[in-house]
Amino acid sequence: MKKKILIITTGGTLACVPDEKGLTPGLSSKDILSYISDITDFYDVDFLELFQLDSANIQPSNWQTIAKTIYEQYMTYDGIVIFHGTDTMAYTSSALSFMLPNIPIPVVITGSQLSIMNPLADAVENCRCAIHMAGSEMPGIFLAFNRKVILGTRASKVRTTSFHAFESINYPYVGEVNSWGLDLRRSYIPGPRGKCTLETKLEEKVFLIKLVPGFDGKIFQLLFEQGYRGLIIEAFGMGGMPTLSSEVIDDLKDVIQKGMIVVVKSQCPYEGSNLSLYETGKIALDAGVFQAYDMSTEAVVTKVMWILGKHWERKKIEEMFYRNLAGEITLPDVAGNSYKGV
Amino acid sequence: MKKKILIITTGGTLACVPDEKGLTPGLSSKDILSYISDITDFYDVDFLELFQLDSANIQPSNWQTIAKTIYEQYMTYDGIVIFHGTDTMAYTSSALSFMLPNIPIPVVITGSQLSIMNPLADAVENCRCAIHMAGSEMPGIFLAFNRKVILGTRASKVRTTSFHAFESINYPYVGEVNSWGLDLRRSYIPGPRGKCTLETKLEEKVFLIKLVPGFDGKIFQLLFEQGYRGLIIEAFGMGGMPTLSSEVIDDLKDVIQKGMIVVVKSQCPYEGSNLSLYETGKIALDAGVFQAYDMSTEAVVTKVMWILGKHWERKKIEEMFYRNLAGEITLPDVAGNSYKGV
Repeated sequence: MKKKILIITTGGTLACVPDEKGLTPGLSSKDILSYISDITDFYDVDFLELFQLDSANIQPSNWQTIAKTIYEQYMTYDGIVIFHGTDTMAYTSSALSFMLPNIPIPVVITGSQLSIMNPLADAVENCRCAIHMAGSEMPGIFLAFNRKVILGTRASKVRTTSFHAFESINYPYVGEVNSWGLDLRRSYIPGPRGKCTLETKLEEKVFLIKLVPGFDGKIFQLLFEQGYRGLIIEAFGMGGMPTLSSEVIDDLKDVIQKGMIVVVKSQCPYEGSNLSLYETGKIALDAGVFQAYDMSTEAVVTKVMWILGKHWERKKIEEMFYRNLAGEITLPDVAGNSYKGV
Repeated sequence: MKKKILIITTGGTLACVPDEKGLTPGLSSKDILSYISDITDFYDVDFLELFQLDSANIQPSNWQTIAKTIYEQYMTYDGIVIFHGTDTMAYTSSALSFMLPNIPIPVVITGSQLSIMNPLADAVENCRCAIHMAGSEMPGIFLAFNRKVILGTRASKVRTTSFHAFESINYPYVGEVNSWGLDLRRSYIPGPRGKCTLETKLEEKVFLIKLVPGFDGKIFQLLFEQGYRGLIIEAFGMGGMPTLSSEVIDDLKDVIQKGMIVVVKSQCPYEGSNLSLYETGKIALDAGVFQAYDMSTEAVVTKVMWILGKHWERKKIEEMFYRNLAGEITLPDVAGNSYKGV
């Protein structure tokens, strides 16, 4: 018997048609299916049209709708595929990873850099890879792109134009299309540890700042006054903060004491933070910031939104922040034991 | 006769010693020279100790001091090397590129991922490469790291731990140490087009925001009220902004009409923005934003600080923003002519 796959469409370049305003999503699921019709020889495919959005317009409320839809459908299908614009796809894949803990089937998000109408497009290959991953019986939230499969919490869009648009940040690819077919690296797929639940509550008042030299810490207080409860700071290098000649650290301490959750991550896309190495990081840790270690920006932002949506106390928030919930974080035991030479 | 090289020290990991607070800069130029003493067989080397700073603490005022020092010394030397922490090194190399137009000698910034005291460090190799580049007679501001030479406006720190920490963003490496020695790609080095001048004025009130889904545009007005005159927005994908269900674009229009300069770039590190492709980008262009095309974050931030320091009118600001001043930008004539297939 053929496996049953549900395809949820949300818009994106894959479904785009050109009009006078530029490219905008417009293809129906029937239009899309006409380009991948042979897939029905292998799978029973159903479509569910959820949105027609450029993913720059996908909001946290859309993540909640997608998560709820998956939760309602997962017992009826062997796997679920989501068509989604590339711009915020990695935010959505991270958010779904936290909102659907212990999902027992594969949920695979994909899209393309060119419309499926374009004969040069990557759209058909990405659909095929995603649908096969959805049929793989490997439970979890994944992102499939350019013949690679990435854990949902580890994906990031790093290139705006190439088909090789997404990378797996600080984590191996969990699957690849090669001469084995869909070659999966099962040991990197965490898998469920309990019953699947739907946990869609989020705190949307989370802000992301990328530091530049000359940064002025007064903004922390302003954000707090605007109701922001979470702040992610992309600091320099390993996570260095300016600690001289400005009151950045005092301003930071102040909002942390008032109850803001502040996470420092590196603005370098690769290899993560380590604030305990340099004085400029240690001072920030002493002020009460959490550090992101090897989490991607997309994972940190959505994890903080999700954790703050629980309204836990600070101690519980800290514990959950550093807990590996969906493969998103590696705590640096190895780095801490490295032979330093001096 | 040996070439004369000036080494300006500013601190950084290269000059770090461990103490109870973590690693902090502490080695003198004499200490550093003892590790690279054979370089004096090839070059006459002078040292000038400027700062002892972790580069997370380097401020725009420090760029101004470095630029002034270079301007005072460049007629006395064949080349200048700057030792600098890696964290904000690419911001400094970009800033110097705008502050010292038409510099007629090589100015090469370098540093390391481990202290020069560490026997496994990359420090000695980076110093050798930088000093040879400084002796190459190729005029311009460069960053030398891991046996590669990068144009000052194209460097970005992308890895926090590896020796391969810096990449040349959307531009070829201009030099590489290989079996040719220091193998330079001269056609990618712009070179001077006039008399060298010192132009250190900067507008420090420039803010960098990285969008996340759920972003609320009210912050634009707040930043304007705080005196910020420049805003760089790292938007989604090619530069997509949320244009539905929120008032982000109206809020943006409002501050632009009040005189704020807003630049939209991609939050993807590679391949740059193109706002004219999707409706979500076109709407932002219509609102009056500039787009960064293939500029790195470091180049955009320092270019905006430098342009706003001139107090030009908006028309002149726009013209200068899109002018290639120091190799930092490629305007997308090719992409605009691409065959789209549909």
